[in-house]
Amino acid sequence: MSKFLQKINSPQDVKSLNREDLPDLAAEIRDALLNTISKTGGHLGSNMGVVELTIALHYVYESPKDMFIWDVGHQSYVHKLLTGRKERFHTLRQYDGLSGFTKREENEHDHWNCGHGGTSISAAVAFAKARDLKKEDYNVLAVIGDGSMTAGMAFEGLNHTGHLQTDMVVVLNDNEMSISTNVGGMSAHLSQIMTGQVMTKIKREIDQLLLAIPGIGKDISHYAHKLDEAIKGVFIPGRLFEDLGFRYIGPVDGHNTEALIDCFESIKDLKGPTLVHVITRKGKGYKVAEDEADVWHGASPFDIETGTFHKKASNPNYTSVFAQAMIDLAKEDESIIGITAAMPDGTGISKFGKEFPERTFDVGMAEQHAVDFAGAMALKGLRPVAAIYSTFLQRAYDQVVHDVCLMNIPVVFAMDRAGIVGEDGATHQGLYDIAYLRTLPNMVIMAPKDENEMRHMLKTAIYHDGPAALRYPRGAGLGVDLDPKMKELEIGKGEVIQDGKDIALIAYGHMVRPAEEVAAKLEEKGISVAVINARFVKPLDEELVLRYAHSTQCMVTLEEHSVQGGFGSAVLEALHKEPSERAFQVKCIGVGDLVVEHGAPALVRRDLKIDHNGLLETISDFYDQVMEISPVAGMGHQGNGNHNHSSNGNKENVANPPLRSDLRKSAIL
Amino acid sequence: MSKFLQKINSPQDVKSLNREDLPDLAAEIRDALLNTISKTGGHLGSNMGVVELTIALHYVYESPKDMFIWDVGHQSYVHKLLTGRKERFHTLRQYDGLSGFTKREENEHDHWNCGHGGTSISAAVAFAKARDLKKEDYNVLAVIGDGSMTAGMAFEGLNHTGHLQTDMVVVLNDNEMSISTNVGGMSAHLSQIMTGQVMTKIKREIDQLLLAIPGIGKDISHYAHKLDEAIKGVFIPGRLFEDLGFRYIGPVDGHNTEALIDCFESIKDLKGPTLVHVITRKGKGYKVAEDEADVWHGASPFDIETGTFHKKASNPNYTSVFAQAMIDLAKEDESIIGITAAMPDGTGISKFGKEFPERTFDVGMAEQHAVDFAGAMALKGLRPVAAIYSTFLQRAYDQVVHDVCLMNIPVVFAMDRAGIVGEDGATHQGLYDIAYLRTLPNMVIMAPKDENEMRHMLKTAIYHDGPAALRYPRGAGLGVDLDPKMKELEIGKGEVIQDGKDIALIAYGHMVRPAEEVAAKLEEKGISVAVINARFVKPLDEELVLRYAHSTQCMVTLEEHSVQGGFGSAVLEALHKEPSERAFQVKCIGVGDLVVEHGAPALVRRDLKIDHNGLLETISDFYDQVMEISPVAGMGHQGNGNHNHSSNGNKENVANPPLRSDLRKSAIL
Repeated sequence: MSKFLQKINSPQDVKSLNREDLPDLAAEIRDALLNTISKTGGHLGSNMGVVELTIALHYVYESPKDMFIWDVGHQSYVHKLLTGRKERFHTLRQYDGLSGFTKREENEHDHWNCGHGGTSISAAVAFAKARDLKKEDYNVLAVIGDGSMTAGMAFEGLNHTGHLQTDMVVVLNDNEMSISTNVGGMSAHLSQIMTGQVMTKIKREIDQLLLAIPGIGKDISHYAHKLDEAIKGVFIPGRLFEDLGFRYIGPVDGHNTEALIDCFESIKDLKGPTLVHVITRKGKGYKVAEDEADVWHGASPFDIETGTFHKKASNPNYTSVFAQAMIDLAKEDESIIGITAAMPDGTGISKFGKEFPERTFDVGMAEQHAVDFAGAMALKGLRPVAAIYSTFLQRAYDQVVHDVCLMNIPVVFAMDRAGIVGEDGATHQGLYDIAYLRTLPNMVIMAPKDENEMRHMLKTAIYHDGPAALRYPRGAGLGVDLDPKMKELEIGKGEVIQDGKDIALIAYGHMVRPAEEVAAKLEEKGISVAVINARFVKPLDEELVLRYAHSTQCMVTLEEHSVQGGFGSAVLEALHKEPSERAFQVKCIGVGDLVVEHGAPALVRRDLKIDHNGLLETISDFYDQVMEISPVAGMGHQGNGNHNHSSNGNKENVANPPLRSDLRKSAIL
Repeated sequence: MSKFLQKINSPQDVKSLNREDLPDLAAEIRDALLNTISKTGGHLGSNMGVVELTIALHYVYESPKDMFIWDVGHQSYVHKLLTGRKERFHTLRQYDGLSGFTKREENEHDHWNCGHGGTSISAAVAFAKARDLKKEDYNVLAVIGDGSMTAGMAFEGLNHTGHLQTDMVVVLNDNEMSISTNVGGMSAHLSQIMTGQVMTKIKREIDQLLLAIPGIGKDISHYAHKLDEAIKGVFIPGRLFEDLGFRYIGPVDGHNTEALIDCFESIKDLKGPTLVHVITRKGKGYKVAEDEADVWHGASPFDIETGTFHKKASNPNYTSVFAQAMIDLAKEDESIIGITAAMPDGTGISKFGKEFPERTFDVGMAEQHAVDFAGAMALKGLRPVAAIYSTFLQRAYDQVVHDVCLMNIPVVFAMDRAGIVGEDGATHQGLYDIAYLRTLPNMVIMAPKDENEMRHMLKTAIYHDGPAALRYPRGAGLGVDLDPKMKELEIGKGEVIQDGKDIALIAYGHMVRPAEEVAAKLEEKGISVAVINARFVKPLDEELVLRYAHSTQCMVTLEEHSVQGGFGSAVLEALHKEPSERAFQVKCIGVGDLVVEHGAPALVRRDLKIDHNGLLETISDFYDQVMEISPVAGMGHQGNGNHNHSSNGNKENVANPPLRSDLRKSAIL
């Protein structure tokens, strides 16, 4: 079927094609994209939009010597198809398969890992500057969408590049549409560029007129050059980029391989920073995706013929429950404001926005601004909810510290996608929020055990008189009934789900249910297990923690978060606030000190041993160890001995056995 | 002496003056600034530069109803003098005195706390939008310097404001100089505006010429309007801001009260976002400060007559030792690169830059870009050191996570000003870096006990094959001898400074010396104290920690960092990795869960009980508590009982005594 694509195993093979065959190659690539993404899900729209652009880049430049830095990296599928990853393309975003973003470990043609927007210009100018310092010779091109251009760090990169005047190229992939409707003055400027095309014609007429006028004499000719410059100022597009020190080229039709190749050929040896403005259409070649670019930005598996997404029966997801809770609360309180940073659909704020357009703000890919915008609004008595994924809130960390927590301003951070995110992988995992937030003064952090508790927590957060972060996972809830009326929870109070005497499992958020399930298994073995829903990471319910630390043989903390500095360490801090003769046996379960890659959440959790089996094994082993080394404490155990089912007596797991015998000596003295 | 200033107790009093008296008021204010800052130290240059601007704003607008949002807030001294804080002005930046920045708690005329740059536009547009939503009526003005304009979040704020078209004003205080020489395309654009003044004259001439030409007929007149627009495009400044959706007004002479007042009067009722471009001179009115704006940006106490800073004898500070170590290493390795984000002097990178200008990059107030710029350079085999204060690295947190740690790139973060910063106060404290960094995979974190160890650590960090953060405090070192040759330390290995059997004090960084001093005091009382220099927070020397946890009665961790999620909690995590029959008694000392305000470091540390006396008291009390509740363990104690010197037998300090008796019951069963 595929006449050209099947022969392409490297960029060299692209170069060997005739120019006139490239549109056919583009068509074959679009088929390949549709075939794979319709099965795996993924960023359909942006990749369908950059087919010709990617072909042209590989046709003109020498990758990997010449470096393409794909901003966000979600539009690199075509690049992957052309750089030797065609045979593995069906594994896209799957466990152990190709990443949905660029990834250095994956291929020599990928130079920069990404997933978050706006980083490409900074990386590209550094690669270019490193080349100059090392007196090497290659081209560097950042390919960045108009959406990412609204990120502050993209501006920082442009500004510094303009200052350095380094030889490099920024390809602005302008699809007039970031993830959602584009935002801001930058976008307006780009629209203006388009209309500017008409203006250039007018300029030519004026030029001819002026030159043709007889009798003006040398006075006018004296100013002719300056006038020309003046006219360019308005009529030639890209002035904003020129102001920042870039040469502006464009706009270029991003679906015309001839025009693109001519353009890149012509700029290949230019000195200084150049911005090439390419106009593309998201979803190009697949009608339904062209028409509804928002919906098809990140597509779940779908039927190609009908253009309908495969439905899987599932419980309502946390995002939609959040959106509905926002609407329910906002109906009764007009001070509630919804804020998103270019993620209206992902966060559910778009749904809120349909009901309350005046109270909804999409600030662009600008989390820093979003947080301060929320903070100042709160100071004026409004109740802003900044809905920002856990991973993206990292972008606004200083603003959370400096502009919210230090001033103790009541802003709600609705952190969707906290924990394991699945197919998006390493760059999108929400694994650090507890650590980076709980160290801050005034911050309240909570996580609901299910979507019903989430509703109560949202209300609790909104009416708390200080900063509050609410963390919840990607995906479906537990399918529990929703209380019609939301209520405020007592801040800093946990919930005892079930009592028990041997082990206390303390979990929060979506780890509460697995804790219950593990408890049920352990109880089958005669072990008495308490299950605690901590609800609040900060302030921690220390009284409850201490009570169970004393009333059980051992305690296990469970969280879907980095175990370093997470909830578990907060529990340890609480247990050590005062001296105690009791040796607390605490196992902190979470995500270890490693980078967590992409794949179906169930598989990722399995590998991390935070799925049901992993938890059960870890907790059983821990309990056995505790029983082994604490015979006195063990006397209080209510079971009948068969808890030793999985004891492997592995001494090597016990830290410093020699020291422990030293200790015995010292204790005997 | 002061004829006008003495009568001014509120902005109303400014308004009651005649316009022609305002220059005299300005002169008196300059005297007041010099008198106070020469004693207290502070931001001299920027405040001398905004005297007329501040007077004009208060003359035209109605503060506090109308809101001035001072970016960074370091230039708000004049505003403080005019808003009822004159009598307290001599307490500037002192313990319990006025803040060196705007502070809501201090005065109703301060609406937004700050200290970090680039936040004012976001706050101002939110205040303006809140006004519209609540149908209130007031003006909002952000006053921002050209340096802060290079911050990405300032751009995010401009972009969103241009999109919203909210009624608000950005006053661009252009002193052609941020903290150091200004950086970037934005700066070049502003310079261009200045030269644009000449151009407007040319434009007028062209206009007249065109109109005077006979015989051109209606063809030319048809284009006259368009030509005018075209000419404006080049000749009228501020085009960049207009592209982002702002009306541009200026440039205005920032030292001419008449011109400023006329300008603000004329724009007061304008709709939509307006940018007023004001040209000022840093240090205006104090010759030496005008001439050396860098040096006088943040001034230490000085002699007004001679313009010389008061010298205090002190040991070389960490910053200068860092700079020299960078130079020493770079002489032998040309791959070493120095990067600063608008803090060349504060970080010492300027000194490095004098030796190695080609390998030094000041990227502007753009920490996000700085980190990625470093990251990509490192991928090309260079060895970048990003010297960024602990508090400012918060701005680049996502880049540290996403663009350095996940890719495991060898970037060195030289975090100056870690810990208590003193007079700069809450917004500048470096109290969260350990928590926000240690949760990240691949990150190595170290802190030197003195300036000599810092040199070795810098070398260690530079030659480590992954991300490494080096944290050191503001101010003078210990005055120790510097080893001429730097050596790499073993990563993850701590140092036993002295052995001991009763208490193990585990400290890192500049808390090691206080630990030694406290140990000496305790030893005088017959308590045997081990002192450990942990060196590495991550990877922690767990073997060493466990060894001393077992070989002593109790352990104390000491750090100048938030105790939540800090080094202490890393130690607790290590102690609980495996079950142990030993009840570890651990006291984590650090900065509690509160906002730490400004003042001399010694006073701040006293209040936080992390100075010598505070530490001694806390540790003594803790040891007494341990001895009281652990009689068995206490039997191993080598002292002779007089360790109970400060025991107050306060049962209420012991958590949950009733539970503890429950526990005893359960333990007896």
